Amino acid sequence: MMKVTEIKSLIGTVGGLKVEFTPFLNRELPEPLYSQLYQWIKKEIEDDRLLPGMKMPSIRQLTTHLKVSRNTVESAYQQLQAEGYLESIAKSGIWVAEIEKPSLQPEDKIHAVKSDCKPSSNVVVDFEYGNVDLDKFPVKQWKKCLTDAVDQENNWLFEYGEKQGEFELRREIANYLLQSRGVRCKPEQIVITSGTQSSIALICRLLELREEHVAMEEPGYSGVRTVFEDQGCYIEPVPLEKDGLSMEHIQSSRVKAVYVTPSHQFPIGMVLSISKRIQLLKWAYQTGGYIIEDDYDSEFRYRGQPIPSLKSLDEEENVIYLGTFSKSFLPSVRLSYIVLPPSLMIQYSQKSKDYNQSVSPIIQRAMSLFIQSGEFERHIRRMRKLYQRKHQALLKSIEEQMGTKVEIVGEKSGLHILLKVKGVKGSELIENGLEKGVKVYSPSRFWMNPNAKRNSYIMLGFGGLSIEDIEKGVGILASCLP
Amino acid sequence: MMKVTEIKSLIGTVGGLKVEFTPFLNRELPEPLYSQLYQWIKKEIEDDRLLPGMKMPSIRQLTTHLKVSRNTVESAYQQLQAEGYLESIAKSGIWVAEIEKPSLQPEDKIHAVKSDCKPSSNVVVDFEYGNVDLDKFPVKQWKKCLTDAVDQENNWLFEYGEKQGEFELRREIANYLLQSRGVRCKPEQIVITSGTQSSIALICRLLELREEHVAMEEPGYSGVRTVFEDQGCYIEPVPLEKDGLSMEHIQSSRVKAVYVTPSHQFPIGMVLSISKRIQLLKWAYQTGGYIIEDDYDSEFRYRGQPIPSLKSLDEEENVIYLGTFSKSFLPSVRLSYIVLPPSLMIQYSQKSKDYNQSVSPIIQRAMSLFIQSGEFERHIRRMRKLYQRKHQALLKSIEEQMGTKVEIVGEKSGLHILLKVKGVKGSELIENGLEKGVKVYSPSRFWMNPNAKRNSYIMLGFGGLSIEDIEKGVGILASCLP
Repeated sequence: MMKVTEIKSLIGTVGGLKVEFTPFLNRELPEPLYSQLYQWIKKEIEDDRLLPGMKMPSIRQLTTHLKVSRNTVESAYQQLQAEGYLESIAKSGIWVAEIEKPSLQPEDKIHAVKSDCKPSSNVVVDFEYGNVDLDKFPVKQWKKCLTDAVDQENNWLFEYGEKQGEFELRREIANYLLQSRGVRCKPEQIVITSGTQSSIALICRLLELREEHVAMEEPGYSGVRTVFEDQGCYIEPVPLEKDGLSMEHIQSSRVKAVYVTPSHQFPIGMVLSISKRIQLLKWAYQTGGYIIEDDYDSEFRYRGQPIPSLKSLDEEENVIYLGTFSKSFLPSVRLSYIVLPPSLMIQYSQKSKDYNQSVSPIIQRAMSLFIQSGEFERHIRRMRKLYQRKHQALLKSIEEQMGTKVEIVGEKSGLHILLKVKGVKGSELIENGLEKGVKVYSPSRFWMNPNAKRNSYIMLGFGGLSIEDIEKGVGILASCLP
Repeated sequence: MMKVTEIKSLIGTVGGLKVEFTPFLNRELPEPLYSQLYQWIKKEIEDDRLLPGMKMPSIRQLTTHLKVSRNTVESAYQQLQAEGYLESIAKSGIWVAEIEKPSLQPEDKIHAVKSDCKPSSNVVVDFEYGNVDLDKFPVKQWKKCLTDAVDQENNWLFEYGEKQGEFELRREIANYLLQSRGVRCKPEQIVITSGTQSSIALICRLLELREEHVAMEEPGYSGVRTVFEDQGCYIEPVPLEKDGLSMEHIQSSRVKAVYVTPSHQFPIGMVLSISKRIQLLKWAYQTGGYIIEDDYDSEFRYRGQPIPSLKSLDEEENVIYLGTFSKSFLPSVRLSYIVLPPSLMIQYSQKSKDYNQSVSPIIQRAMSLFIQSGEFERHIRRMRKLYQRKHQALLKSIEEQMGTKVEIVGEKSGLHILLKVKGVKGSELIENGLEKGVKVYSPSRFWMNPNAKRNSYIMLGFGGLSIEDIEKGVGILASCLP
């Protein structure tokens, strides 16, 4: 019945192993070719005919052998990579990945896309960035705030909530910012968002940044860069100097806004110097440009006083301040905020009047109860001490076990460090570490310029790890160094 | 009262310059000494008493002179260096750095802008659309789900959550959609969003709709139209006929996507006929266009069987289905979802890999527990009956008290109705009603074309009102008619 038009064979090899490729691809099926190819390879992997560690034929090889378009092979490979069946290793090729088999295998043409590729192998210590500590978290108090919020005079439960965010929470944030960050603002200037990415999207709309140039530190937070790009901005990557982004670069550019992380540059870690802060403000005042200050982890500074925010120096309302509860509280509350200069409030109310608030008022009100009760401040103090101990343990382990083979980059704050490794490529260290059960990360996605010398860096997040695991992990990693 | 224990003087020199150090350090203040020292030096620099290019006393010198610990001086210097006030030059010493001063603009000029203008007058009955009923809401069960969610094996609390949304919730939604809306889909196709507006923004990115034409019913949901416009789409308003949007109009257009509310046109209320549904699908298959089906309130249909979704007829994966918990559960959960066709999953995973999920996993997991427990289904059944009674009471009151002076527009479903008023302008009736304490709304913002004959309509939402209030409100409104 069905005419099978494509039966091809290709030999792929890894080491001494030979693997035969004979996918049945039928152009007359409604299912597109890439999908058939994807299904076939997936099945080969699931049935253990293609084994972890085998190298796949290159896209070019497979394109030629199957007489299909490059697109077909690329799409199939991309899907398989997205789902974790294949792994692409730079300058090495595409490999069959180590996977755990799911228990159920229903026949189905739906391409299950795994959004998060969690390590499926035997990872013992995972230096993933973004996780926070769970041992000291006041679960009981937080649950009480959640239920107390629902128990409050609760008409608001049945409404969409204030567009700008619940007033109670904005008031608590305004108090907090004044005390801890030197930011003077009214609740009326604060907008609640469901994360820094949502904050950026809102700012793009507010400042009408489409088709405009926006400066970002290079390297910088890729999650923010993606949003700017998706909103139609042109990114100007600004090189970093020892004391932060190059002001000459900014001054000679025609950017309308600059996104910066002055308290703790992400991911490198320096502090923007006071003279550059002032130059940056002057630039903004002279050109009418805006500074978007992302103060993502300023709560966790382990030596000296907290660095005052750039916003606290702003006297002409050109700094838009971004904060988040993801680091200081829980990533899973998905709660961030923007402090807008008063001069932007009219535009804000015009451009946002048709938008509903996207954070559940339940979460917002629970958070404001949590802050009101003093629990938030206690939590931050507790966590600062805890993270400080972890940070010290990490630095000490690295010094003791890795010595001069690595260099620790950046300031003494935050929930991650960068290491510059010597005598071996970062990617090799990452691979070798993984084999021994330690997961560290490449910060390469934070560079916009693909030619940047970034391959010597590895990134270690430590927020979610115990001191024991930190020491163990560094020990294993050290054993992977030449 | 306070005993000043440390008044020291130290002469630092640079070149020929002499500088006197007389910091007041008070051990009895709660502020630590290093911080006092830091503050003092900072002020000296800011007030031009310590000038750029001056060499600071060494740590050792200052320690001895101030009779404080080395740590105190070190910490103060480190902080000042981190902030760029001082500069350490290897083998030379510590120097006051070159900084530029911002120009001063002292007076506080915060323009408080209130975003939500709630009526402050004596409104007795408010027919606002969007609110839901609060009397029958299972507050206790919902609170239990919130705390149970936090109590679950809760590592996820300390992470950002699955980018696509928590798997548990997506699985519950897939089951629910199959049973109640005839939509066959896998959890892998579902994306959780923080509201229909977020869903639309995601779809714009996914389908690359910037600079593309998108069709919308005229009138249609303005909250969605705004998002399309803000994402750079050109809106084609499509006139409505008795059985839904004009297919001729669609067929002669060059739109890439059509946004429709087939089960219950918003705000007019008709159902898209089966023949138009099929024509619309055919149009999509032939042109490769996409249909965005917003099934916002399909749970509440009071006569006959539920209208099957348009998605349930889609055989070639051209319908993107949107659902929400805002009507069926609570607006304040800010929880909506998209069902993507499998063929779009590759694009989705490519274009969304850098985006964090914006809905708190706490809310998502509570919701999935609520559905799992059967409470959600019970809640919908209960609400459907309740809303049906309210709907009947509303229609009956209108018939009895307003008679032929108005015409009820639209199908017998949902949480709002439109009235076409005769002999008086809608806007006048709204004004006169407000004077007597009844708030009804103009649906005019739902029309894109300002010349549309929309001034004869008024809109009444009834979800959040009691039957008593409904009758009272209609009575007062009737007394405003000529």
